[in-house]
Amino acid sequence: MKLYGYLYEILENVKKNKPLVHHITNYVTVNDCANIVLALGGSPVMADDPKEVEEMVSIASALVLNIGTLNERTIESFILAGKKANTLNIPVILDPVGVGATTLRNKAVERILREVKLSVLRGNMSEIKNIYGIEALTRGVDSIDNPLDGGKEIAIELSKRLGCTVAITGAVDIISDGEKVYYINNGHEILSSITGTGCMSSSLIGVCCGTGEESLYGTIAGIMIMGIAGEKAHKRLKEQEGLGSFKVYLIDAISKFEAEDIKEGGKINEIQ
Amino acid sequence: MKLYGYLYEILENVKKNKPLVHHITNYVTVNDCANIVLALGGSPVMADDPKEVEEMVSIASALVLNIGTLNERTIESFILAGKKANTLNIPVILDPVGVGATTLRNKAVERILREVKLSVLRGNMSEIKNIYGIEALTRGVDSIDNPLDGGKEIAIELSKRLGCTVAITGAVDIISDGEKVYYINNGHEILSSITGTGCMSSSLIGVCCGTGEESLYGTIAGIMIMGIAGEKAHKRLKEQEGLGSFKVYLIDAISKFEAEDIKEGGKINEIQ
Amino acid sequence: MKLYGYLYEILENVKKNKPLVHHITNYVTVNDCANIVLALGGSPVMADDPKEVEEMVSIASALVLNIGTLNERTIESFILAGKKANTLNIPVILDPVGVGATTLRNKAVERILREVKLSVLRGNMSEIKNIYGIEALTRGVDSIDNPLDGGKEIAIELSKRLGCTVAITGAVDIISDGEKVYYINNGHEILSSITGTGCMSSSLIGVCCGTGEESLYGTIAGIMIMGIAGEKAHKRLKEQEGLGSFKVYLIDAISKFEAEDIKEGGKINEIQ
Repeated sequence: MKLYGYLYEILENVKKNKPLVHHITNYVTVNDCANIVLALGGSPVMADDPKEVEEMVSIASALVLNIGTLNERTIESFILAGKKANTLNIPVILDPVGVGATTLRNKAVERILREVKLSVLRGNMSEIKNIYGIEALTRGVDSIDNPLDGGKEIAIELSKRLGCTVAITGAVDIISDGEKVYYINNGHEILSSITGTGCMSSSLIGVCCGTGEESLYGTIAGIMIMGIAGEKAHKRLKEQEGLGSFKVYLIDAISKFEAEDIKEGGKINEIQ
Repeated sequence: MKLYGYLYEILENVKKNKPLVHHITNYVTVNDCANIVLALGGSPVMADDPKEVEEMVSIASALVLNIGTLNERTIESFILAGKKANTLNIPVILDPVGVGATTLRNKAVERILREVKLSVLRGNMSEIKNIYGIEALTRGVDSIDNPLDGGKEIAIELSKRLGCTVAITGAVDIISDGEKVYYINNGHEILSSITGTGCMSSSLIGVCCGTGEESLYGTIAGIMIMGIAGEKAHKRLKEQEGLGSFKVYLIDAISKFEAEDIKEGGKINEIQ
Repeated sequence: MKLYGYLYEILENVKKNKPLVHHITNYVTVNDCANIVLALGGSPVMADDPKEVEEMVSIASALVLNIGTLNERTIESFILAGKKANTLNIPVILDPVGVGATTLRNKAVERILREVKLSVLRGNMSEIKNIYGIEALTRGVDSIDNPLDGGKEIAIELSKRLGCTVAITGAVDIISDGEKVYYINNGHEILSSITGTGCMSSSLIGVCCGTGEESLYGTIAGIMIMGIAGEKAHKRLKEQEGLGSFKVYLIDAISKFEAEDIKEGGKINEIQ
């Protein structure tokens, strides 16, 4: 399958070039994001002050904007770093954490979409629906909508409207560049029981897009790696072990990830 | 014992309703707080900007205010979110981390107590003494006072004064609603050797109070769950294993927690 | 060897006095820094608001300034806390994360060096070169320079210029107080694959200098403990285990650390 060729290439390039991924992100999951970037072979840098984000993003290979604990200072930084990334052709990944829950988040996302050209938008079904323009059910930062309930059409149309890859992650992950649509069936529900698996997926997408590969394939790679690693981590759990061990095993699995894992475990379909 | 009936009910309701707990908290232990809320079955959300905290708390079932790394912006948010929670009858839990160590912390706590009606105040002996009005020994955010040294009287009187449940945690945990007083003898001293066990206890209280149960029982549940989980985690430690493994096992134990654990391991006495 | 006598004494004093280490640090690795301070036997406190840092540092035994996610508010706090520490003879450790990558970082470090008297400066080769005044290769917060390539001379001269101990950490760690120079050959390259090992080393230096021992020996102790613990953690890794397990084992090793480990595993040479 030609798709797998791209994914192997991305993995190889990550190891070879160690893409530097600049994050402007929340303080809840930032440590996990840094560690998962390192585990896959990338190099993370976090910097959020308006006075330095343009310089920092200039030396990076990708920029991840995550609004998990946004404030006025960091919103300014999102815009400054995003615009700078655009002028330098550095891919920008937006993780609109909790959009729909508050006006501040809605306005911040509207402003980012207006002023910054994204390469990838990744969110859960509630977040993507909110951006698409449908009142969605939301509980703080967790989605209670099902991606299969109209997700395909939303992904395609939103992708066309924004001119970027759109990924809706959930029980099934739906990814579209406006033309092609892929469903990924990897992952395990336990992933939603630890904080930050969404944020970490966005960071992995940042690493994969930082290789210079097309954003559609960078997005598929990031999400599939997270899903397969989640499955492997879950399989290792023994009787007494729960969510603490799971998180350790997840990072283990990412740091041991190889092309072989995709070949053996990848569950992806192109949808017509 | 009737008390245990309440505790079982709380555990069941957590699993059934997944209470959303809004945190305005410090960036040191925030990841652990999010993960422990998820591990017990709740849903965490962290948001600290004055422009969004009122909206965010409006969709939550409990609000945890933790002053660990406070600043002027977040103090404003404590007040806004707290007042909003009050108008909506959403329980507010205050964790006055390090009060007594600096004037900023003292003033912030005074203001919160003046403007926000608490459901629960949880702190170590130094913190509670400081709020009560006794010069207490403090070393940064760690207490060097013993709860048994006058803690019972302080808990009762402070509870009456503030009209909320007061919990003093330490080697023995003392909990009072101004009338009843309980001593909990669960826990293990190793809990004080990892950061955030106090903060995590407050988060668990948030989850338990988020079920709608009386704050006295929500507080007992949260503190007892932490204590029993700490004992179980400590028992799993093997020869080479230290504090890294302990933290993993602690989250494991919370995520595997069942009513049975309370029945078998709960050590609580009502004091006259 | 006389040096080892100092190191044993430091370890003993840490256990006996539990030095309180005030951190003004980044939100990426702050939890790891708090846990590693506790694991060695110290007591961490994090507070970053200009309105409280002077009071907080006044009750501390050491101050760690880490610019990983600096902003204008925290730069103000670096200066206020640093000056206060100076008047109280509390040792100040500076970790100039990512200096050289942005103008904000360069200016912040310049200001700190101008207004605060350091006891210890610890960075990677790129960071130290930048402070020394050589254009260095930098990739965000990671160094791509080799300490052995001129590090000895830079450490000595910078140490004389700043009047403090200078430590360049990397494959080999170079430490000088301007007169003596030591090379430490402990550690394992896997340490650079998890986030925060540099920050954690600075925190351990803070604990060790918080005993009141000379900063040269406090610095050697902190760096050597990290290196030996890294080796022990790496040795424990089994087949399926990767970076998640490594981080757990690293904290385990610090929390189990004893004088015996230095005696058996320490690899240090004084260089002429």
